[in-house]
Amino acid sequence: MKFIIQKDYLVQSVQDVMKAVSSRTTIPILTGIKIVATEEGVTLTGSDSDISIESFIPNEEEGKEIVDIQKPGSVVLPARFFSEIVKKLPKDIVELDVQSNFLTIIRSGKAEFNLNGLDAEEYPHLPQIEENNMFRLPTDLLKNMIRQTVFAVSTSETRPILTGVNWKVDGKELTCIATDSHRLALRKATIETGNEATYNVVIPGKSLSEFSKILDDSHELVDIVITENQVLFKTKHLLFFSRLLDGNYPDTSRLIPADSKTDVILNVKEFLQSIDRASLLAREGRNNVVKLSTLDEGIVEISSNSPEIGKVIEEVQSQSISGEELKISFSAKYMLDALKALEGTDIKINFTGAMRPFVIRTLEDDSMLQLILPVRTY
Amino acid sequence: MKFIIQKDYLVQSVQDVMKAVSSRTTIPILTGIKIVATEEGVTLTGSDSDISIESFIPNEEEGKEIVDIQKPGSVVLPARFFSEIVKKLPKDIVELDVQSNFLTIIRSGKAEFNLNGLDAEEYPHLPQIEENNMFRLPTDLLKNMIRQTVFAVSTSETRPILTGVNWKVDGKELTCIATDSHRLALRKATIETGNEATYNVVIPGKSLSEFSKILDDSHELVDIVITENQVLFKTKHLLFFSRLLDGNYPDTSRLIPADSKTDVILNVKEFLQSIDRASLLAREGRNNVVKLSTLDEGIVEISSNSPEIGKVIEEVQSQSISGEELKISFSAKYMLDALKALEGTDIKINFTGAMRPFVIRTLEDDSMLQLILPVRTY
Repeated sequence: MKFIIQKDYLVQSVQDVMKAVSSRTTIPILTGIKIVATEEGVTLTGSDSDISIESFIPNEEEGKEIVDIQKPGSVVLPARFFSEIVKKLPKDIVELDVQSNFLTIIRSGKAEFNLNGLDAEEYPHLPQIEENNMFRLPTDLLKNMIRQTVFAVSTSETRPILTGVNWKVDGKELTCIATDSHRLALRKATIETGNEATYNVVIPGKSLSEFSKILDDSHELVDIVITENQVLFKTKHLLFFSRLLDGNYPDTSRLIPADSKTDVILNVKEFLQSIDRASLLAREGRNNVVKLSTLDEGIVEISSNSPEIGKVIEEVQSQSISGEELKISFSAKYMLDALKALEGTDIKINFTGAMRPFVIRTLEDDSMLQLILPVRTY
Repeated sequence: MKFIIQKDYLVQSVQDVMKAVSSRTTIPILTGIKIVATEEGVTLTGSDSDISIESFIPNEEEGKEIVDIQKPGSVVLPARFFSEIVKKLPKDIVELDVQSNFLTIIRSGKAEFNLNGLDAEEYPHLPQIEENNMFRLPTDLLKNMIRQTVFAVSTSETRPILTGVNWKVDGKELTCIATDSHRLALRKATIETGNEATYNVVIPGKSLSEFSKILDDSHELVDIVITENQVLFKTKHLLFFSRLLDGNYPDTSRLIPADSKTDVILNVKEFLQSIDRASLLAREGRNNVVKLSTLDEGIVEISSNSPEIGKVIEEVQSQSISGEELKISFSAKYMLDALKALEGTDIKINFTGAMRPFVIRTLEDDSMLQLILPVRTY
């Protein structure tokens, strides 16, 4: 294998596939990046066997030459070294030249690296995925859907299925749900699809987080293919594979209360800052708990108490409070996470008593919902 | 104690004195910040008993009211909580009000914090320092002198005296020297002083690093007072005290070779990037060693070899090489540290053979010097 390539493209591609490379793998060759040069261009692959990322650099793009393939072939190079090397090469042009025994010469300007490579035939094959059934979402929407749900997955392996996000497709609607059994995040969106397939799968939270780091904020469509045990996301030059979690995701629909006893409408920013301040002292106490009480004239009181350190009490003017008077305690962290995930300037919180889960929605948009279980302190 | 204060000033002062507060202190009251309000303004103090920082906020500055003292007094508040609280207060104005038992109320807008305070009488007294003998340096020069030497102090407690920087004052010249016995950094400057006192003290590297974080890049003069066991730096509104290290600093003057067998003049940036690349593979081998060889036509070859991973070889065009041919090995990390510490665009390296320390200076400026001991590989 021998080719000459624009450094910028190589650096970007290496950075993308590095997201899938783990130094703590049990399969030694997966600490490497697979590089394959064909007549069409160069393909880089990184994988930790849960996630695999494939990045393609075409010979030319918009009439500009990016790669000059002099001899097709393949090699696996140590990922950590290769990625640091390409970033620091002195010139804009890089030559990769594989000699006997996969010894690879990387040249740029007057700098010459020799890296011991491995046989690309030894690298595990990526899952073969039938691309008959797929649907599409704009990149920015997909990124938002991930951001607004993935934080709520469980970090504990007690119930492994809860470390993933439940993706359900029914007709033209995709619903993403995450819960750690103390709070729940839900986001819906309309997808572009040519068929009426239904899916109900669980994607590891970690895979979605890593994938979202690669996504830009463009409107370009991402193709999504779901199979029995894999999901594949396809962007312009990138394939992102993740395995799915085994098992049935719990039915969360019954968790979300349909009725409501106290409704509060609030400005997100003011409320968030107030909870943030109260959490400064709450953090010391058990469970990071703050208390919310409705007062007269639309005033919401936020307080928290950490006997050894001190206490904080604060009033937030709501836009409206209707229904029963309420005193409720909850985790400041869960509330902050939920408020940061929601878009828009105003929120509506529907409470069904101090012991029941409550639901936060934005006033403007019904496609997302955050649910939090209160903490029993009364 | 009761006063009303502009939040910005309070936040900045708290941030400055926090640099001296450690959570790992054996004296519980030192986890707090001492606040004293007098008719003139508010003084904040933080200390870990090695370093103490005192910050003064005057009642008014340039005709603008900053503090309104309603009742003089003092209190010690838990530093971590107090600093996070003031940063997050909702309004530009903050009220501090100490009640009985040092319970302190912090009010801003509709937010009210109660913090359990302590008696300021229990707080250790700062060292009393006679200010008869002092000298002065501009802030930016002082910051540079610290930056260019402090990185070379020893991080090991085997010889505690080497964890400090040796400050010697003789007449109008200050010399700062740091060495960990593998490399040495030296920087001289002319000071402003009214007397001809001589000093030879060792200031803990950690104290200088913390102090330099507080310094801005202004030309304002810093007053420096050295006593038997303390150094005091005085800026406009800040006092920074550090204890000195006990013991005699080794005489380093004999370490610096007076003669030279090979002289190389190089562009700093090109040379630094080349060493940086070579260190990518050197890091794996023992001791992070790179090799430098002089070739014909003013070419310097930088190489490094890590048998399991690969090797790198690179040519740098020097401006001139004079004297004997040379092959020498040294720590890439020490060379990078030294090159980053030097100012200017071109450097001169004086070698005295492969086994002897070599000296790096900038072409433009003779007031600083970096010395590195080679690694024996031949």
